[in-house]
Amino acid sequence: MAPHKAPDSSRRSDRSRRAIYDAALALVGESGYRRTTIEGIAARAGVGKQTIYRWWPSKAAVLMEAFLDLAARAAEEAAPQAHGADPQAGGADPQVGGAEYGIPDTGDLAADLKLVLRATVDELNDPLMEAPTRALTAEGIVDAKLGAEFVEKLLDPQLALYVTRLRAAQEAGQLRPDADPRIALELLIAPLTHRWLLRTLPLTHAYADTIVDYALGGLAPRS
Amino acid sequence: MAPHKAPDSSRRSDRSRRAIYDAALALVGESGYRRTTIEGIAARAGVGKQTIYRWWPSKAAVLMEAFLDLAARAAEEAAPQAHGADPQAGGADPQVGGAEYGIPDTGDLAADLKLVLRATVDELNDPLMEAPTRALTAEGIVDAKLGAEFVEKLLDPQLALYVTRLRAAQEAGQLRPDADPRIALELLIAPLTHRWLLRTLPLTHAYADTIVDYALGGLAPRS
Repeated sequence: MAPHKAPDSSRRSDRSRRAIYDAALALVGESGYRRTTIEGIAARAGVGKQTIYRWWPSKAAVLMEAFLDLAARAAEEAAPQAHGADPQAGGADPQVGGAEYGIPDTGDLAADLKLVLRATVDELNDPLMEAPTRALTAEGIVDAKLGAEFVEKLLDPQLALYVTRLRAAQEAGQLRPDADPRIALELLIAPLTHRWLLRTLPLTHAYADTIVDYALGGLAPRS
Repeated sequence: MAPHKAPDSSRRSDRSRRAIYDAALALVGESGYRRTTIEGIAARAGVGKQTIYRWWPSKAAVLMEAFLDLAARAAEEAAPQAHGADPQAGGADPQVGGAEYGIPDTGDLAADLKLVLRATVDELNDPLMEAPTRALTAEGIVDAKLGAEFVEKLLDPQLALYVTRLRAAQEAGQLRPDADPRIALELLIAPLTHRWLLRTLPLTHAYADTIVDYALGGLAPRS
């Protein structure tokens, strides 16, 4: 019936890839980074371990792509209005992950930042994200090499979106002309990461809004 | 010669306690939290494990006190001018740890915050602190119970010092009257923690100064 085998084979590959991502994230969330193995991922995904080795050079590489894919899907679910509406642009290439999403620019910097930081709150509070993200972050904190890969592949592309949005705000006169966008973004995102990682106090939309207001308006009285 | 045994016995206790702290911190920095055991700490400290069990109920309890003691010593070394000069007040009771130190109040909020955040930068960059602090923080990120103990015993007492200083600033008209000091402090300390934990960019005095300037002055232009 089918003129050639490519579409079926491609669908099988997609299904295997999805199963491998899911297995990798589930295992790292349950057992931690160090106890997760290629063999364990293969067994749980129901594929041969050679399938994994054919596509990825290492456990770290599988996990990084699984996270990129998860972050892209979570971002789409948590706040579709904050991202481009083209579903073809997201998810198709796990190498790109969330980096193709931009921060909206409605001309109102505070509103745009609140929208994105509220979506970040939702992603961090998503049970599907939580355990694997904590496990990978914790391992990156003690393993400098893995941490550098985590930052380069997962974090820096996200931070670059803030730099772009803050530069546009600077050109529009909504950000102090002498502020360095790469540092300014840390006042916005670090408090959320801090609350989430250390579980000091609840991470809520109201908190995200307050951080934006304090960071933009400043803690000192405006005279 | 000695009229009674108490001083010698007390000195021996102090030496054992110090040896146990040092062994606990060294082991957790080298092997991680999970692979550190009471037996291992006792062997490295050259004491019987019953000595440890007599003073502390658990591995977590030894480590918390070792960290409180380490933080108190590091704070004294990094910035003695930032703290009270009474050496009797610090270190003697590891239950109290750094909590008896306050943030200076010279009347200049920005200068006082820069002094304290620069000292924090020095502490975080101190090799003696780094490995064990990373190991404990990483474990607290994946183990909610340990994380809660870490926050309650080590972090919250430090954050309380910022709340006190920021409230004083508010009364002096140097902090927005509508700002919540408990949230405001997160704009100051979370960026430093974020850079240090994730190793995104170098953690320097200049960075600490910039964070204080941005957080107090705000990222939006002052008209």
